[in-house]
Amino acid sequence: MDSTIRYPEKKIREMLASGLGAEELGREIDGLDSADLLHAVYMLSPDDQRALLSALTPPRAASLVEELPDAHAADLIEDMSAHDAAGIVEELSSDHRVDVLSELDKTEADAIIAELDDEDADEVRELIDYAPDSAGGLMMTEYASYPMTATVREVVDDLTSETVDYHLLTVHYVYVVVKAKKLKGVIRIRDLVFSDPKQKIGEIVSPALVVSPETPLEALEAFFDEHDIAAVPVVDARQMLLGIVRRRSLLEALAERSEADSLKVAGIIGGDELRSMPVWLRSRRRLAWLSINILLNIIAASVIAAYEDTLTAVIALAVFLPIVSDMSGCSGNQAVAVSMRELTLGAAVPSDVLRVWRKEAVVGIINGMALGLLLGMAAWAWKGNPVLGLVVGGALALNTIVAVSIGGTVPLILRRLKLDPAVASGPLLTTVTDMCGFFLLLSLASQVLPALI
Amino acid sequence: MDSTIRYPEKKIREMLASGLGAEELGREIDGLDSADLLHAVYMLSPDDQRALLSALTPPRAASLVEELPDAHAADLIEDMSAHDAAGIVEELSSDHRVDVLSELDKTEADAIIAELDDEDADEVRELIDYAPDSAGGLMMTEYASYPMTATVREVVDDLTSETVDYHLLTVHYVYVVVKAKKLKGVIRIRDLVFSDPKQKIGEIVSPALVVSPETPLEALEAFFDEHDIAAVPVVDARQMLLGIVRRRSLLEALAERSEADSLKVAGIIGGDELRSMPVWLRSRRRLAWLSINILLNIIAASVIAAYEDTLTAVIALAVFLPIVSDMSGCSGNQAVAVSMRELTLGAAVPSDVLRVWRKEAVVGIINGMALGLLLGMAAWAWKGNPVLGLVVGGALALNTIVAVSIGGTVPLILRRLKLDPAVASGPLLTTVTDMCGFFLLLSLASQVLPALI
Repeated sequence: MDSTIRYPEKKIREMLASGLGAEELGREIDGLDSADLLHAVYMLSPDDQRALLSALTPPRAASLVEELPDAHAADLIEDMSAHDAAGIVEELSSDHRVDVLSELDKTEADAIIAELDDEDADEVRELIDYAPDSAGGLMMTEYASYPMTATVREVVDDLTSETVDYHLLTVHYVYVVVKAKKLKGVIRIRDLVFSDPKQKIGEIVSPALVVSPETPLEALEAFFDEHDIAAVPVVDARQMLLGIVRRRSLLEALAERSEADSLKVAGIIGGDELRSMPVWLRSRRRLAWLSINILLNIIAASVIAAYEDTLTAVIALAVFLPIVSDMSGCSGNQAVAVSMRELTLGAAVPSDVLRVWRKEAVVGIINGMALGLLLGMAAWAWKGNPVLGLVVGGALALNTIVAVSIGGTVPLILRRLKLDPAVASGPLLTTVTDMCGFFLLLSLASQVLPALI
Repeated sequence: MDSTIRYPEKKIREMLASGLGAEELGREIDGLDSADLLHAVYMLSPDDQRALLSALTPPRAASLVEELPDAHAADLIEDMSAHDAAGIVEELSSDHRVDVLSELDKTEADAIIAELDDEDADEVRELIDYAPDSAGGLMMTEYASYPMTATVREVVDDLTSETVDYHLLTVHYVYVVVKAKKLKGVIRIRDLVFSDPKQKIGEIVSPALVVSPETPLEALEAFFDEHDIAAVPVVDARQMLLGIVRRRSLLEALAERSEADSLKVAGIIGGDELRSMPVWLRSRRRLAWLSINILLNIIAASVIAAYEDTLTAVIALAVFLPIVSDMSGCSGNQAVAVSMRELTLGAAVPSDVLRVWRKEAVVGIINGMALGLLLGMAAWAWKGNPVLGLVVGGALALNTIVAVSIGGTVPLILRRLKLDPAVASGPLLTTVTDMCGFFLLLSLASQVLPALI
């Protein structure tokens, strides 16, 4: 950050208040880079954000919308009239269009789609049915295709003509089709360089690698790993060209999924949260996860209630209960993170449960002994009772082994059960390790109670 | 996964054991897609992994190394002779080469670099000094550059000639230079299509957007957001062309950083951990973070020790200590995750501490009351004592507000202090909220002790 902090949001606010038109606002916004623009928008109140979007010309509003996270863009568009919203949506590229519309309620999305021109509306209705993390959901419908009989010169002339909107295209390939949509193959733009302008493109076309619209993110990742191309055509079962997925879109989708996973691991589920969203929505989503957690916590703590007599006899144990609970959570979460990472990389697959468990158990034994020793010594030093040290240290050591075993294997098991490991691993881990930790500490203590009093 | 699980690692192991040569192994490996290959490598013992790498021809070994995470690739190469390692390193693309070598100890890296041919060695020595997350660290030195006086035809002929290794290039641009390295501008390959073959490229060159080698990841991200180009040339202060950064490399670096952050948040610090790494290394790195945490935990729990009398009088409180500690951690971590996300997006900057705090406080009040009510009711129902419910519920409600306030603001404050919020936010958060939670619960209880007994 520059030390002279700029406040573009103040200027925008003033311009909105003084009723300045689309031109002045547009110029102000064009002067900001994307990070500053995003931050400025966040500093505005929701009302000012909406006023800004309405005051801009649709193309400028659309480019602003493309900078915002989809959920936030949808929030803003939701409150506009369907007609105004459609004006902006029309200016978005096909992939952004669908991303934003899928964040809206079905009725609101339908109202906006009804306001689009027929061709765009039909296209959106088709695209919106694909899962967002599939080739169909990631593809864009802006591509250049020509019939077999076109000549190299015709293609080149068309690509350079002013009538085609290639603003949205990063043209690396030209697709060759018959009957308007059936894909016959692909020509790299650079190969057009080396061709005779009078040649028919049907003569220089190469067979195209293709994917189906259902191809999931993982398979697309493997595909682009394997093939060094910038975009892949998506075709249906009859080889009809539906769109293209760019490597760039795939990489962006992978980044988004990994961001979404970090949010889910920390208990932000049900979608992206940004502090510009309404408070009740943020509270409700967070509470949904917290209230499940508090129930699990109460269940785990019920183990403590069963040992009230032991605790009353040796009140010092109460000090170590939260330590055992927290530290087991920490050790277990480390193992969860490594498993999530190995799942993402493909270095571990769901059937590797046993192998992963053996690898984790070794680390658990070493780290359990180290941590147990540390906490045991602390307990001994504090109360001058070596047996207390043994009980506390032993419980932590054993529970560390339990925690890393569960932490390492649970993500794989959840993936195998087709559940989302990012959401469920944490709560499952802490509930089981808490119960087990409390039980180990208190039952060990009750075994040697006379020596502790 | 296919239901008929394949075991390529078994086949590779058998082939290694029977001493089969580079050709057979190479064919087996070529038949695997990258995810299966990576998984197969992980299923081999470290010795077998090394044996596999040595048995392959250097180009095949290099393409295997490019599939592996850098830290793992470095582990394998480390144990080979510098001469053999150099044979593989020579076949890597310039950016991978530096990534792998920077993971090695300086002496080992130097020994390998000394075995490279002089030109490569000089290049690596230059590149290795750039920070990995800067344009210099991300750039590759494989690009096509030509003098102003070359004709379009000469450039095209050269690009299509067999002598140049364009395996590593994804050619979208040709750079125009004077005196071998001084950048004059850029020509898109597609623009060569539309040019007269006899023209000098100096006549059709456009000015190039450039970045300096020190440009950090965030600035590169803003750059590629702003400009729809596939690669940007990196030049020094004298406009000498040092290399190019592809959009793709940037997106991959961003994804890696976000992966690294999720590991750090969960307490895997000091680098990527994969279960193929030596146990002592994995244990030691995890313990480094755990042992700091256990000390912080002991400090937090010392608050409990100060209230032993209150606890002895109302042993039921011991059940609620871990619940308050866990739940505050959960609420706080949600706020941490949202702040980390907003920092990544640019929706929050370090100076927004106050704004973020106000936004979090509202959510904290709502969720604190909801959770406090829930836990308070549970406590009342369990012991039939409404005052116990008030104490427990009140402590959790207040501590939830503390937790989200700290969780939301600490990442911003750490970023401002130039500390890594991914590493330090969690431990700081839980220590403070644990202390505060224990204090709230036990001091509230001691105030109304007669009503609790």
